Amino acid sequence: MVRKLQVGVSGLGRMGARHALHFLERTPRADLAAAFDPDEKTLAWARKCLVPFGTTLYTNYEDFLQHPGLEAVVVAGITTQHATQAVRAIESDKHVLCEKPLSTSIGVCEHVLNVAQTKPGLTVMCGFSRRFDASYRDAARRVRAGDIGRPAIVRSQTCDKHRDDDYFVHYAKFSGGIFVDANIHDIDLALWYFGQDSVVKSVTAVGINARLPDLEQYGDVDNGVGIVEFYGGKIAYFYASRTMATGQTDTTEIIGTHGKIVVNGNPQQNLVELHENSGIRREVPQTYYDRFEHAFVTESNEFTECVLDGKKAPFELAGAVAAVKIASALQKSLVTGKKIEYNEAGEEVVAEKPRL
Amino acid sequence: MVRKLQVGVSGLGRMGARHALHFLERTPRADLAAAFDPDEKTLAWARKCLVPFGTTLYTNYEDFLQHPGLEAVVVAGITTQHATQAVRAIESDKHVLCEKPLSTSIGVCEHVLNVAQTKPGLTVMCGFSRRFDASYRDAARRVRAGDIGRPAIVRSQTCDKHRDDDYFVHYAKFSGGIFVDANIHDIDLALWYFGQDSVVKSVTAVGINARLPDLEQYGDVDNGVGIVEFYGGKIAYFYASRTMATGQTDTTEIIGTHGKIVVNGNPQQNLVELHENSGIRREVPQTYYDRFEHAFVTESNEFTECVLDGKKAPFELAGAVAAVKIASALQKSLVTGKKIEYNEAGEEVVAEKPRL
Amino acid sequence: MVRKLQVGVSGLGRMGARHALHFLERTPRADLAAAFDPDEKTLAWARKCLVPFGTTLYTNYEDFLQHPGLEAVVVAGITTQHATQAVRAIESDKHVLCEKPLSTSIGVCEHVLNVAQTKPGLTVMCGFSRRFDASYRDAARRVRAGDIGRPAIVRSQTCDKHRDDDYFVHYAKFSGGIFVDANIHDIDLALWYFGQDSVVKSVTAVGINARLPDLEQYGDVDNGVGIVEFYGGKIAYFYASRTMATGQTDTTEIIGTHGKIVVNGNPQQNLVELHENSGIRREVPQTYYDRFEHAFVTESNEFTECVLDGKKAPFELAGAVAAVKIASALQKSLVTGKKIEYNEAGEEVVAEKPRL
Amino acid sequence: MVRKLQVGVSGLGRMGARHALHFLERTPRADLAAAFDPDEKTLAWARKCLVPFGTTLYTNYEDFLQHPGLEAVVVAGITTQHATQAVRAIESDKHVLCEKPLSTSIGVCEHVLNVAQTKPGLTVMCGFSRRFDASYRDAARRVRAGDIGRPAIVRSQTCDKHRDDDYFVHYAKFSGGIFVDANIHDIDLALWYFGQDSVVKSVTAVGINARLPDLEQYGDVDNGVGIVEFYGGKIAYFYASRTMATGQTDTTEIIGTHGKIVVNGNPQQNLVELHENSGIRREVPQTYYDRFEHAFVTESNEFTECVLDGKKAPFELAGAVAAVKIASALQKSLVTGKKIEYNEAGEEVVAEKPRL
Repeated sequence: MVRKLQVGVSGLGRMGARHALHFLERTPRADLAAAFDPDEKTLAWARKCLVPFGTTLYTNYEDFLQHPGLEAVVVAGITTQHATQAVRAIESDKHVLCEKPLSTSIGVCEHVLNVAQTKPGLTVMCGFSRRFDASYRDAARRVRAGDIGRPAIVRSQTCDKHRDDDYFVHYAKFSGGIFVDANIHDIDLALWYFGQDSVVKSVTAVGINARLPDLEQYGDVDNGVGIVEFYGGKIAYFYASRTMATGQTDTTEIIGTHGKIVVNGNPQQNLVELHENSGIRREVPQTYYDRFEHAFVTESNEFTECVLDGKKAPFELAGAVAAVKIASALQKSLVTGKKIEYNEAGEEVVAEKPRL
Repeated sequence: MVRKLQVGVSGLGRMGARHALHFLERTPRADLAAAFDPDEKTLAWARKCLVPFGTTLYTNYEDFLQHPGLEAVVVAGITTQHATQAVRAIESDKHVLCEKPLSTSIGVCEHVLNVAQTKPGLTVMCGFSRRFDASYRDAARRVRAGDIGRPAIVRSQTCDKHRDDDYFVHYAKFSGGIFVDANIHDIDLALWYFGQDSVVKSVTAVGINARLPDLEQYGDVDNGVGIVEFYGGKIAYFYASRTMATGQTDTTEIIGTHGKIVVNGNPQQNLVELHENSGIRREVPQTYYDRFEHAFVTESNEFTECVLDGKKAPFELAGAVAAVKIASALQKSLVTGKKIEYNEAGEEVVAEKPRL
Repeated sequence: MVRKLQVGVSGLGRMGARHALHFLERTPRADLAAAFDPDEKTLAWARKCLVPFGTTLYTNYEDFLQHPGLEAVVVAGITTQHATQAVRAIESDKHVLCEKPLSTSIGVCEHVLNVAQTKPGLTVMCGFSRRFDASYRDAARRVRAGDIGRPAIVRSQTCDKHRDDDYFVHYAKFSGGIFVDANIHDIDLALWYFGQDSVVKSVTAVGINARLPDLEQYGDVDNGVGIVEFYGGKIAYFYASRTMATGQTDTTEIIGTHGKIVVNGNPQQNLVELHENSGIRREVPQTYYDRFEHAFVTESNEFTECVLDGKKAPFELAGAVAAVKIASALQKSLVTGKKIEYNEAGEEVVAEKPRL
Repeated sequence: MVRKLQVGVSGLGRMGARHALHFLERTPRADLAAAFDPDEKTLAWARKCLVPFGTTLYTNYEDFLQHPGLEAVVVAGITTQHATQAVRAIESDKHVLCEKPLSTSIGVCEHVLNVAQTKPGLTVMCGFSRRFDASYRDAARRVRAGDIGRPAIVRSQTCDKHRDDDYFVHYAKFSGGIFVDANIHDIDLALWYFGQDSVVKSVTAVGINARLPDLEQYGDVDNGVGIVEFYGGKIAYFYASRTMATGQTDTTEIIGTHGKIVVNGNPQQNLVELHENSGIRREVPQTYYDRFEHAFVTESNEFTECVLDGKKAPFELAGAVAAVKIASALQKSLVTGKKIEYNEAGEEVVAEKPRL
């Protein structure tokens, strides 16, 4: 019989439940051996949808880690638990796929990275879903092949559909802010296309609350724009929004000295166009998952493959820390209203005090 | 002082008025010297909009032709008058730009052609507006350059926006039917891209009345599909409609052995896209003129240039007759329900009588 | 333990191997219990890719049908074997998913249908992949909801990328011709959108060999255009090609009295656009599978669900027979050069012999 | 006879010659009475193309202003002459259409504005061509109508095609820099869509030289990104480039609380799409004039109409000064590397000196 990776999913909320189903149903080389969630309502769902297929449920994370034969853990619960759970899993010799961000705190991110580096035999990945999307990968392949010359400018946006409820306001308590929560994907893309070793020169961000004034209490905004300068003649600029009328509209442009690649310049739900009295219309994905479902499934399969076949992960965990650093700097620039500058060693440059 | 072509427009109805204004305002090398229309309401408009700029009005066509210094006539009135007026203008030694079709009768078309051929010094053109459209011309240039190999298939459609009034029903009395009135443009395009000397092998057409059952009394339909086979391995197929919800949606594909060119595959009013709650929407031209305004202006200017500079017309009058022949055959096939076949000499092949 | 459908795949050629993998890896509720193929090279692949995961191989179809516990059979071998294998499977009380077409012979199709009707408890489906495509389904939902009024015109094309080898010529020996092999999908779509009970009034087809003159020996063409009139004011027109420069470009339009739906009007491989010196470019799917991979996976899963949960198949087997009838009529019209007419009872109307 | 506006064009370089021809040939209510240019080569062209149609040439600007009957002047020469010539024309009681920018110096701009305000009877306009483009106008109409709620974010870019020569380097000597020369259009659009009275809160810009390192000597860049914050919850962000591989790709998005409008999200030369072996391709405009030709013609006609009919200009001259102020601030931020902040009175806020 063929060996299947024994995977456990921690956290069965919205994204966690999806991860669980991806491993259960759409990752042929993995078994969903175990799942952890302390919430009774979530467990009820799991009893109906996971347990009949062989998954064991746990309400205690440490017990979950001790599940016989468990090899790998997907950390998919609330952001504030990501780092703690990831660290404990690594310490228990489990391979880890951790939802982004590792943490909203740079120090905590670095701690996870340090712990992971003590176990070089483990696959520890941060779940940047776009890294697994066919279109972003096609773009990466072309950039690497030199199709656009030297990449010089990245424009990237993560734009969510407006919701009439207060979801985004509640979410802001823990999300780390719009640049950390939403643009982190775009930052990761910039690092992918520019090179992971790109050194930040300056960071600036501004933002407004167009429809969600209650975000202000958390120092957050519903629309933000940021610029990140890198040494070596590279600029990334970002836009994030929680208030799009039409749906999830994430677009990225990579502009090189000799060409440009656009990913998702024309968002679309499917291949249907409607000719109506008011014109020609197409629908667009309503949520992040609508847009990236296939990327998440690829993620599950490639994580599994890396572990089973001893392959190198498609990208380094250190990159996830770098992305959080940049995102946090954008957030800090947003709140302080200041441009933040760095020297080539990566240290923040504090404006000189005038001499007396 | 620079010589300007002295032009007269016959017929100041919807399209005639536009032609008049194009020569008056947007054809720098021409003067709108005269205009003819017997209708009082139309003349009232002309007195206000043309006369102050130097145009003389006539209510008698023969008087109009005698306007001192008149050099060229645009025949833009009702279809049933096209041929008569064009012939009289040619006989009076005027250059002629005649709206399509010359006539809905092949015999009459041929008569106009014969008369024109007696005056080789005159420019006599039929107003196939798409021949002057930048996109169709770009396609023609590429086809001639061999960019798609040998052109083998043409798909072309002329689709009007549905109107809630009975315009199309009244219009059908004189229009010659949907293939003669609408698809004649597409037929002309097929002859352009395949070559004017293409010989028809067979013609088939079918149609329905989706929303305008009153068309039936005139043997016409509001949606028609036709196929024209040419000798030498070439097929054109056509669609015409009077019932589009969205607007004027004329699309053409030229498929060659080594590539395909699409003209107006994605109709659009302008360069604006609207992101709304219901999706992403663009508007489309509502009328034929919305789509082809610039082509009509180019037509005025090039007709003027041909006459003033003694240039050859951009296409032969004989092509206009060939297009009417094909359109009439499609109309006949629609009405009889029969496929019509031709030998290589262009003669209709009548099914053999079975031997006794 | 949860019950999984025990599936066997017959024929492990290009599409068969894909079906096998879909059931093995991407259909959580099914097991690929068995596979049949007589070809040694194909079996070698299966020994490596299927057997380790629990699939038993057979080189004799009858033995394959006797595989212990086998519940369902996917008939995916060469077209000429479809009907025989499907019939034997049904007779052996297996549920059947049969690749299209059931047969290129109407009589044989009807025989399969008759046999299937003797076993109403079995799920017997013909694999019209587009029925499982998200975009075609979205279109169907909108048509049913009345979004475009009454559907009146369907335009649909199946266009394959040109191949420099003689694949399509060899294929033509058994394929039944371009209308039966390629446009059968479009015909099926027309029946879906117009209603399965639509009655054909007339059929006309023409074709050429633009690049593959060797097709002529099989009475086939590399580019064909056909029109199918239905009683009740409905027209479908089709285009099929084997010579597209760019790739798989299957497009469908459903035109109703009050709107139009376009499926895949702008073919695209993914969401990437390339800005290059020569303009803006996107790539397109190169093969049918590139375009419809996800539809095939949905097909496997829904077939499995229908059987396990006793659900009605999403469409009737009778429709597959109706589609072959229309496709064969188009092929006959192509070869004879004649329009074929039918009365409302569905009988071909033979032109009256002239009276003596 | 109908009165025609007597127009003179100053400067017959690339854009000046086009303006001259627009007034000569495509502005029915205007005569090109006079033209001024000191350059012999340019005059040779004018003698051939303008003089035969009644235009008088001048090599002395003051003589040109004295041309009998001259009513209006188009200032279209080099940027450094714009202000001087505009002022002299106003002082000579001529209506003025001045190419953008009035000047690269804010003080000079304000001087022009002051002079213009002493002659309220004169039409004095700055030539922001996009204000006359059908698509930008459609967007403005929709914004004013409230279609997108309150406009909150504007993204706008002006991207020129890369040139292999050193045009952009030479041009940088006088252009005022990329934000003043290129993004000034985008800034003007932001003021249009946000309201002319919008008050700047902060300005930040960064830039690189991706292909034109020689720009550095002029303190300029070939790719620049800038953010302009306005009081009242409005942000505009800009991108300008001189190095696009594909052509002129100017795109604008206006994002409101309830919808978004995109102008030219998909640049295209015309309505042609090419299906080739490498995919589907369309060409894009190569130059600014390719994209905005019709807007320039509309500009000529509306300027003429404003003067002849005593209409208010479609936008205020003061806006042109405001745009230069913002553009200059972006340029200053680029060069200094500092974010520039303003109080609500529009005064630059200098960072407090730390107290001793």
